Amino acid sequence: MNLILLDPENTLGTDRYALTDRQQTHVSKVIKAQQGDVLRVGVLNGKIGEGIYEPPSDHQPGYIHSLNLSLSAPEPLPIILVMALPRPNMLKRTLQNITAMGVKELYLIHSAKVEKSYWQSPVLQTDSINECLMQGLEQAKDTLMPKWSLIPRFRPFVEDQLPDLLENKMGLLAHPYLAKPCPINIQEPCVLALKPEGGWNEFEVSKWLEVGMESVHLGERILKVETVVPVLLSRLYPA
Amino acid sequence: MNLILLDPENTLGTDRYALTDRQQTHVSKVIKAQQGDVLRVGVLNGKIGEGIYEPPSDHQPGYIHSLNLSLSAPEPLPIILVMALPRPNMLKRTLQNITAMGVKELYLIHSAKVEKSYWQSPVLQTDSINECLMQGLEQAKDTLMPKWSLIPRFRPFVEDQLPDLLENKMGLLAHPYLAKPCPINIQEPCVLALKPEGGWNEFEVSKWLEVGMESVHLGERILKVETVVPVLLSRLYPA
Repeated sequence: MNLILLDPENTLGTDRYALTDRQQTHVSKVIKAQQGDVLRVGVLNGKIGEGIYEPPSDHQPGYIHSLNLSLSAPEPLPIILVMALPRPNMLKRTLQNITAMGVKELYLIHSAKVEKSYWQSPVLQTDSINECLMQGLEQAKDTLMPKWSLIPRFRPFVEDQLPDLLENKMGLLAHPYLAKPCPINIQEPCVLALKPEGGWNEFEVSKWLEVGMESVHLGERILKVETVVPVLLSRLYPA
Repeated sequence: MNLILLDPENTLGTDRYALTDRQQTHVSKVIKAQQGDVLRVGVLNGKIGEGIYEPPSDHQPGYIHSLNLSLSAPEPLPIILVMALPRPNMLKRTLQNITAMGVKELYLIHSAKVEKSYWQSPVLQTDSINECLMQGLEQAKDTLMPKWSLIPRFRPFVEDQLPDLLENKMGLLAHPYLAKPCPINIQEPCVLALKPEGGWNEFEVSKWLEVGMESVHLGERILKVETVVPVLLSRLYPA
């Protein structure tokens, strides 16, 4: 937790933000802050700076007051990420890592090779997803909450929603067959689609190509999901 | 295991390579290969292609024969990686991932903020490190075994060994203070030094700079080790 991210919905009054349990634990046990200490804080979807810590008492939780917020959140990546739903134990870490890297718009999509059981996972509960995204923001010292949608049906998304998302953007399908090398440092917005472990089937590939996505590859080396996502994002938007 | 990597020291005769226990388990339980099946194989530090599978019998282990090796291993990255020794539970995954990305020369170095206990970890046993590297090669379909050294003393390495390693190479210290942005797509060899979780101390930074390393940063976002290494490698050598 490199930033204490304060939620405007947790105010205890003007310029006074309650800490969540998770934040209180970090402040007490990791930072070991005392009353009056100045901590690095940010406001959700707002600016970053410092605030003064007041420990919890009998009547109220610990809180931050006297905020001085002068820094803007880091630049987001101009990318719309469409990801076949990963297996639950990969999803949490993936959500944290893509958020830390600056992804602000995410669609988690079904496809033939995505196990139906993944959609029942408790990791997909709204609070659970939002918590992962928060952890990504705290890691990277960012405040801008990503927008996300669950897309349980492949075809309506690709036929009806995707063409609008693709307007004035490069469309890239990370798919190793009949692909050109993934471009480097594109300096423009894009939609990037990431396949499930088992890959897209023929029908799905034809749908992606039909709407104007281009297949791109990362070379001969096969990388694990946890490596391929940072590699792709860093290649498209290195700076 | 995307490639069965055969060790020339495991031959049972001409053109006949024994499978290790780990490979046999994969071939029997994941691939579910039968006698006579053609499998994707490579020879350690050699070429890649196919071979024919013979299951184990009472007298001998399973093996591969009739090899047809026509493909070269993928291009290595022209990088010498010097990493402060990570915590043991990060080390295995880090070794696999840097190997999968094509790192061929690695120094694991001590520094003030590296816990002395990390050096006692069984993960640092030679067989254990080599197994992680093998797994990285199998993941990426590579055959060229990285060279690696353990450097338990910081100062002699930086003063005596590093100047030779740095000849005709860019020297980059991933260190966020007084740093320029990490260059993109450098297309030349480099030495890259990665800090421990707690960072380098002042003495260590001065030693790195004295020998000619330049501080580079990745921007405002603080990324976890598991993300920062693929991001750095991909930024320096995207193609």
